[in-house]
Amino acid sequence: MKYLQDLQWRYAAKRMNGQTIPAGKLENIKEAVRLAPSSMGLQPYTVLVVEDPVLRAELAPVMFNQPQITEGAALLVFAAWTSVSEDQVDDYLGNIAETRGIPVTALADFRTMILGAVKGKTPEQVFQWNARQAYIGLGYATAAAAFEKVDSTPMEGFSPEGVNRVLGLDEKGLSAVAVVALGYRDEDKDQMAKAIKVRRPAHKFFTVYENNAVPA
Amino acid sequence: MKYLQDLQWRYAAKRMNGQTIPAGKLENIKEAVRLAPSSMGLQPYTVLVVEDPVLRAELAPVMFNQPQITEGAALLVFAAWTSVSEDQVDDYLGNIAETRGIPVTALADFRTMILGAVKGKTPEQVFQWNARQAYIGLGYATAAAAFEKVDSTPMEGFSPEGVNRVLGLDEKGLSAVAVVALGYRDEDKDQMAKAIKVRRPAHKFFTVYENNAVPA
Repeated sequence: MKYLQDLQWRYAAKRMNGQTIPAGKLENIKEAVRLAPSSMGLQPYTVLVVEDPVLRAELAPVMFNQPQITEGAALLVFAAWTSVSEDQVDDYLGNIAETRGIPVTALADFRTMILGAVKGKTPEQVFQWNARQAYIGLGYATAAAAFEKVDSTPMEGFSPEGVNRVLGLDEKGLSAVAVVALGYRDEDKDQMAKAIKVRRPAHKFFTVYENNAVPA
Repeated sequence: MKYLQDLQWRYAAKRMNGQTIPAGKLENIKEAVRLAPSSMGLQPYTVLVVEDPVLRAELAPVMFNQPQITEGAALLVFAAWTSVSEDQVDDYLGNIAETRGIPVTALADFRTMILGAVKGKTPEQVFQWNARQAYIGLGYATAAAAFEKVDSTPMEGFSPEGVNRVLGLDEKGLSAVAVVALGYRDEDKDQMAKAIKVRRPAHKFFTVYENNAVPA
């Protein structure tokens, strides 16, 4: 399958060559992230799109100066909602009602379910829950980039406080959980560009349950 | 782009029709998950593959008897490692060395980096970190399923203790964090099958930083 070849092709580029990404490709990658599933459809995160080189240079010091930050063409910063408010839930329900042409009152049970799920968690658990949804989006970003033959490097190595400060996220109720640098690999400078992809062999990564038996 | 059409087509099917998935398609979906990126390449989770109907029927009660569990054709249970041991790190490094034909001693710095990252976290933080990686894999599973025109329903609504017990995960150092049911939508029974997809509009889901200015 073509998509598996593309996923084989992708790797976390360590060095990028500064080439810009055609606007259409970046829009497609963003659209894939927007279409990613999330728990109850809430999409409890925001994606910050930073192409501006000045702002990327400002981010570099709070991201351990990894070369892709400035050598890439764009950063997608996945920022999880630090909590889930009733207003955010109502915005979501309003969007469902408008999109599907139904009265928002028809969503009363769903509203109770979402708010119940939130209230059943500690604030830290809510944040972790939101962060996990953002990682689904991160997955979609890296896959879509591969289909667009754009390189992508997921990054967790940064100071969330620093990134939040530079991007003004605290006051938006957001906190950065992961970043994807998008750009084009520099095959001359990146010694990983030609390295064989390493993945756990299927027989170790998967456990297949057959005939109602729990494998040893 | 074809892949965006496929992602538009997908939704979390609420009812499935029992149709089995051709083995090749299931293998492709699994392979996509195996190729998903993870922090430092560690893949700190295992994917349990449950096609057996008897075992799925056993799982149903600990998963709120959601219909897709038995009406689907397979469950992918994403189980995060409950911790990261030195042995697991060394297995990974051994795999890198073997795959790339390099001595494992060449990976000493990388070993120190990984173990340092683990030791810098509390046990709970390590588990959450592992769980987040599993969610990237979950994203890949749902996207690949869409490309194979197989329906997929991500599920968090279950008792982790119950799923861990039925699948014998405690003794493997694993804990279920999410499940993806794979199968085929039942368009007659699923009132969501023809519902318009709801996503936050792009101008709200993304925040685009331009000209070094933090948007209001």
